[in-house]
Amino acid sequence: MKRNSAGVPVLPVAPTRGRLRPLGLGEVRITGGFWARRRHVNATATLDHCRDWMERVGWTGNFRAAVEGRIDRDRRGREFADSDVYKLLEAMAWESGHSVDTSLVETIAAAQEPDGYLNTAFGRPGQQPRYSDLEWGHELYCYGHLIQAGVAQLRARGDGELAKIARRAADHVCAAFGPNGDQGVCGHPVIETALVELARATGEQNYLDQAALFIARRGRGSLADSEFGRAYYQDDLPVREAGVLRGHAVRALYLASGAVDVAVETGDEDLLAAVVRQWEATVARRTHLTGGMGSHHRDESFGDDFVLPPDRAYAETCAGVASVMLSWRLLLATGEPRFADLAERTLFNVVATSPSEDGRAFFYANTLHRRRRGTPPATDVDSPRAESGLRAPWFAVSCCPTNVARTLAQLPAYLATVDDHGLQLHQYADAEISTDGLALSVRTDYPHGGSVTVRVDRTPDHPWTLSLRVPDWTRGDTAWLTAPEGPRRAVTPGTATVTRVFRPGDEIRLDLPVRPRWTAPDPRIDAVRGTLAVQRGPLVYCAESVDLPDGHEVDAIRVDASAAPQDGPGQAVVAVGEVTAHDAQPAEPWPYRPLDTPTRPPAAERAGIVLVPYHSWANRGPSTMRVWLPTHGPRPGSTDDR
Amino acid sequence: MKRNSAGVPVLPVAPTRGRLRPLGLGEVRITGGFWARRRHVNATATLDHCRDWMERVGWTGNFRAAVEGRIDRDRRGREFADSDVYKLLEAMAWESGHSVDTSLVETIAAAQEPDGYLNTAFGRPGQQPRYSDLEWGHELYCYGHLIQAGVAQLRARGDGELAKIARRAADHVCAAFGPNGDQGVCGHPVIETALVELARATGEQNYLDQAALFIARRGRGSLADSEFGRAYYQDDLPVREAGVLRGHAVRALYLASGAVDVAVETGDEDLLAAVVRQWEATVARRTHLTGGMGSHHRDESFGDDFVLPPDRAYAETCAGVASVMLSWRLLLATGEPRFADLAERTLFNVVATSPSEDGRAFFYANTLHRRRRGTPPATDVDSPRAESGLRAPWFAVSCCPTNVARTLAQLPAYLATVDDHGLQLHQYADAEISTDGLALSVRTDYPHGGSVTVRVDRTPDHPWTLSLRVPDWTRGDTAWLTAPEGPRRAVTPGTATVTRVFRPGDEIRLDLPVRPRWTAPDPRIDAVRGTLAVQRGPLVYCAESVDLPDGHEVDAIRVDASAAPQDGPGQAVVAVGEVTAHDAQPAEPWPYRPLDTPTRPPAAERAGIVLVPYHSWANRGPSTMRVWLPTHGPRPGSTDDR
Repeated sequence: MKRNSAGVPVLPVAPTRGRLRPLGLGEVRITGGFWARRRHVNATATLDHCRDWMERVGWTGNFRAAVEGRIDRDRRGREFADSDVYKLLEAMAWESGHSVDTSLVETIAAAQEPDGYLNTAFGRPGQQPRYSDLEWGHELYCYGHLIQAGVAQLRARGDGELAKIARRAADHVCAAFGPNGDQGVCGHPVIETALVELARATGEQNYLDQAALFIARRGRGSLADSEFGRAYYQDDLPVREAGVLRGHAVRALYLASGAVDVAVETGDEDLLAAVVRQWEATVARRTHLTGGMGSHHRDESFGDDFVLPPDRAYAETCAGVASVMLSWRLLLATGEPRFADLAERTLFNVVATSPSEDGRAFFYANTLHRRRRGTPPATDVDSPRAESGLRAPWFAVSCCPTNVARTLAQLPAYLATVDDHGLQLHQYADAEISTDGLALSVRTDYPHGGSVTVRVDRTPDHPWTLSLRVPDWTRGDTAWLTAPEGPRRAVTPGTATVTRVFRPGDEIRLDLPVRPRWTAPDPRIDAVRGTLAVQRGPLVYCAESVDLPDGHEVDAIRVDASAAPQDGPGQAVVAVGEVTAHDAQPAEPWPYRPLDTPTRPPAAERAGIVLVPYHSWANRGPSTMRVWLPTHGPRPGSTDDR
Repeated sequence: MKRNSAGVPVLPVAPTRGRLRPLGLGEVRITGGFWARRRHVNATATLDHCRDWMERVGWTGNFRAAVEGRIDRDRRGREFADSDVYKLLEAMAWESGHSVDTSLVETIAAAQEPDGYLNTAFGRPGQQPRYSDLEWGHELYCYGHLIQAGVAQLRARGDGELAKIARRAADHVCAAFGPNGDQGVCGHPVIETALVELARATGEQNYLDQAALFIARRGRGSLADSEFGRAYYQDDLPVREAGVLRGHAVRALYLASGAVDVAVETGDEDLLAAVVRQWEATVARRTHLTGGMGSHHRDESFGDDFVLPPDRAYAETCAGVASVMLSWRLLLATGEPRFADLAERTLFNVVATSPSEDGRAFFYANTLHRRRRGTPPATDVDSPRAESGLRAPWFAVSCCPTNVARTLAQLPAYLATVDDHGLQLHQYADAEISTDGLALSVRTDYPHGGSVTVRVDRTPDHPWTLSLRVPDWTRGDTAWLTAPEGPRRAVTPGTATVTRVFRPGDEIRLDLPVRPRWTAPDPRIDAVRGTLAVQRGPLVYCAESVDLPDGHEVDAIRVDASAAPQDGPGQAVVAVGEVTAHDAQPAEPWPYRPLDTPTRPPAAERAGIVLVPYHSWANRGPSTMRVWLPTHGPRPGSTDDR
């Protein structure tokens, strides 16, 4: 196994037990295709972009102001601004081609207080006292991201100043919030998963115990009730008693990730089963087609079951990142491919949607329906709103850019795992994989094409098993597996395996049926009744106004469900339907007509309607967009389904 | 014309010109039926309930604290808490059977500063300076409600201390914000309509000029941009340039009301036309079936056109009150019955929905779909949330109870108007109307029944015209008018008239076709595609889980659109459909199935589904509820409209 200079495997997540074992960033290299392009932009543009903006808006300067004793006057940004600096440092640490900003780390070290406390918003003269606002203060949340950055440095670069700062902070947390300390929890989870990872990286049981304490304490009403209710910060029910994720989506998903980490390390099967149950209910009832989670703008939260209106989809980018974190942990713990299925859906349709092609602008919320063309956000000031129809360079709450950056930086680690029987491929990209006497090359045109070829470059001389995920989206079609010297055989969604004594040069091929397909929504989702969406492979497609005849908007589209969508030019798909002047002022201004008045818009010419991958929308200027497309309604005079 | 003790007609709104002239509270008496019951509860329970709660939560105490020099330490409630005290005093003034709280008025007078400034949240030692936060401070907003209370006292009770306080405050505003003063506007409109009314009540041109200034200044970006954008407080576009109402719904509707008032008093036809245009677009594209306005919870604002999801309908009670205010002003200015149509829809389905039967609990938001049973709110503390599925006694932001109270107190004034040709009846209730040599009795079983009989009790001996609104909801059916000695004749939506020399004892009868009817939504509203609602007369109906078989929830309902709904027991309506076990856990947890998988729930027995008036829901304990009912989907195997 390749290791870093200190001999430690470069693992973003390193459980000590579980069904599958992760591979490190030194063991998997993405060499081309969809994710290589995005990782290149991330490494060469996004990291510097984030660094420049944080300097401009003063978030890095907060640490200097703290050192210089003027933070009470000069602090900038929201109470959680420190965390974005840490997330950027974490991204820099995972990204091997990028240096970690040592002068910034030195300033952070200088701002840390002798007892390990570190936060630029609390605790100094003229500021609110430490831990005086656990509901909204985000102090433990900031530590969480600091610790994750420290773990990244420890694993990717060997020990260093950032890792030492993180350990001092973690020791302080264990002292301040341990069994005999403050019995509170933070309004925003993330410290839990960070402490478990630090325990894994250092072998210190203390950190794991503290994480387990935070999980056990939560859900007992220690946080004050608020306008959004205690469910907002998951303090309404103990983690092991809840049946579904609820409240603020990022908080809920970070907490669930931490609960999995604690469950795995402590062998707590009940806790693991509780999170799996919550994941199942959440995916079945509270998840958008894209994998996006969170349907309320007001409190960035999950809605009730089946409350999934496309035009009010919040689907925060950070909730996508957090959902991938949770799915990855559940995959390692259980080995079940459904968790990799959701991670794939979310990576391609949420995480990949957020950054612009140049990596210097981002979606914060990822709506599934945009009714008005957006106005370009200013490029020289941070955007106060997260809802524009166009990506913005920075936000007043700018959690998403650095979250995307750290996810893309560690992405190779999500491709494959090993166990005692062999190697498992979960996500498909051009890649070189090399671990413990085994080396593979993966070549594919995924996600546009469905052919995946795995060549064995180095292999032990005893039998082992290569496992390939057959995505759930192939259901209803046929996927084929071709083993060396064997005939091809049909494989069903789940896991396809080849067990044999491999030889160097052996090739295994998986052919996935990538073609456009209609998807009907669950009939219990009111907001999309009478519509269809198009998917193709793992990608969700959308209609965008730039592909319509001049002056038409996407709300003018009706599709013909009886005609299957077909491949179009480039990566486009073409569906058959009508584009009417559907958005014109109605003839009469009253909105509600009795049933005997025809409500169908005027008939229009049948036409091909071009659809593009959802992740690519809004890269061609202001546009309107929709994922769920209304089907033809009944003819006038019919009384059904009007 | 009957006048108060000072000889002033008791008019809530008293334009000096316009197509119709209002009648005063002394001229119209509601004697029985739907609104008489609610007005009785309002006068005997709600006013005292509000007075008690405001004492308990400290909002009335704020004025005492200001007088006693301890307000910087002791102030309670939000920055606009003063306004609710004023709205209650306004309600007390209009409600003839209720005394105005003189000791409270004396305390308010003592808290007013020598130059007329009056606000318990700003301007005293230890507080923020006066007018230092026009965006969110609500100082001019609070004056608006103070002045409306003063006008109510002036008109209903003759001059008094409250009217004097209001005039001193208005004089201060004219000095501070006049042509040579602060050029700002308040983040929350309402001062505009209040100043115009004070000008009407006192004859002081100064107040009208100031209101016109506020209208003209708005929309030019004088308020700082915010998270919600300048459209939130209508500072994005000048009033006369906007095409539709937008931003915070209550703010938008109060501002539009003030613009109508200014337009009428200054003869500004362009400004009036601009507001009519905005009203038309808003009703056609941004209004729920109930008349509720505002579809975003986050900023209590209008959504884009056709963004009207029932389960996220905000439809704030105060926006309903404000919509009635706007429609009433437009009706007086233009005489067009469509404004009375919307007022009727909103009164029966928003304003009447908010208070509980006992007048001691309220809805703040008025959703059209409740998916989970609510939990009863605490009765001894104010509710932080406005979204419970049950009415709450008081809210941290408690604008709605006093707004309902002042609306019900002045409701008789909305029933009828006069012009040079006769009298117009706009809203139907048992009533006695008496003005200038003319007296009428109205007898009706409205809204449950549609028969309205108008008896002439006193009449001049020359011909005059009685006008009766034929509601827009009769479209597609037939309404009948029977004049004295005449045969009945069919009348169409709009205005039906009888012109003659009436004699005492003459009876005119309007028969409106009140029967249950399906209503189909506009096909551009995504959120209700494939559903129908039931209306009956002016009432919107809903399904409520307490009327379903045990254990079933409303999301299990599918209705058969080919069977017309029928009258049921009491005020209920019965539709034919199915109630399936539709809300059970799905067989497989993945939410998105390809089209070739049947998504239709299992067939169930056909059954009658009981529907009740929407305004009555949630009076029988926790329940789920929906207004828009899904129709039968296609049979499995069909490919249309899945």
